[in-house]
Amino acid sequence: MNFEMNEAIEVLERTPRTLAQLLSGLSDGWLRADEGEGTWTVAEVVDHLIEGERTNWIPRVEWLLREGEARPFPPFDRFAHLEAQTAQPIEARLRTFGELRANNLARLRELVHPAEDLERTGLHPAFGTVRLRELLSTWAVHDLTHLSQIVRVMAERYREDVGPWTAYLGIYRKRT
Amino acid sequence: MNFEMNEAIEVLERTPRTLAQLLSGLSDGWLRADEGEGTWTVAEVVDHLIEGERTNWIPRVEWLLREGEARPFPPFDRFAHLEAQTAQPIEARLRTFGELRANNLARLRELVHPAEDLERTGLHPAFGTVRLRELLSTWAVHDLTHLSQIVRVMAERYREDVGPWTAYLGIYRKRT
Repeated sequence: MNFEMNEAIEVLERTPRTLAQLLSGLSDGWLRADEGEGTWTVAEVVDHLIEGERTNWIPRVEWLLREGEARPFPPFDRFAHLEAQTAQPIEARLRTFGELRANNLARLRELVHPAEDLERTGLHPAFGTVRLRELLSTWAVHDLTHLSQIVRVMAERYREDVGPWTAYLGIYRKRT
Repeated sequence: MNFEMNEAIEVLERTPRTLAQLLSGLSDGWLRADEGEGTWTVAEVVDHLIEGERTNWIPRVEWLLREGEARPFPPFDRFAHLEAQTAQPIEARLRTFGELRANNLARLRELVHPAEDLERTGLHPAFGTVRLRELLSTWAVHDLTHLSQIVRVMAERYREDVGPWTAYLGIYRKRT
């Protein structure tokens, strides 16, 4: 295992500012692009990250610490952000994400004492017993998976434009 | 086709600052991680991007505009950076990348007049005839593919730590 809470926080605190640099001021062409019907735009991915800050990560940490395995986590709607449809400019969404994340990391530091708490367990509605370490690792990797998604959505826009170079560009290899 | 030179430049100018936010100050654990034997660390990916600024993109643009299809591009060694082994701190590498990129985008604006030049052709040693538009699209997507790689390398470090959540994290699906 490689997890260290301080190192996971390094990733978690960098995501909002990384996305701010990548996405602020981008043309609508980039922000409105998706990967086809039923897939998310870059802006929708940011909304999903915001929703996670509000309803998923810290609430589950609190639940696990409070309930242990007595009661499973309440379910989390991974598509809730698609109904909210705030349609704010991307810069406002990124700011919201950054503020929520900063507050949540402060809360995390209050709630969790790594030396004692990381192997504490809770009950996931689908997986059964899960450890706090696994939940926190997942929070960091969830950021990375959506950062990867954003970059892939952007690349998709030029799939035809790159011509024969498509063969050299790993990002165009279909995932199975 | 979606390519517009100004929009491609939006991506190209954001990559150095995006990487600076993502990677500056990260622990060695993140910077030294790779995906197994023969794969690159995060720092080696940045070195590869630097090498491309020095020897690949603008030199090929200049070659195409000068030679047309008279002579193929000189070959580009995609592994040259692994021999250079500068071993500078990541912050210095990111600064170098940002400076080279800024100069190269200024040079690009001098060299290329989108209304006239984008369909001009050159000769790629493996692909044959290629268009300037394809070369410039590829430059932008090359940034995105390596940003995606960096994020994937980082995620790999927690593959075991996330426990059962691995099933929900798209970044762990193997590429074919």
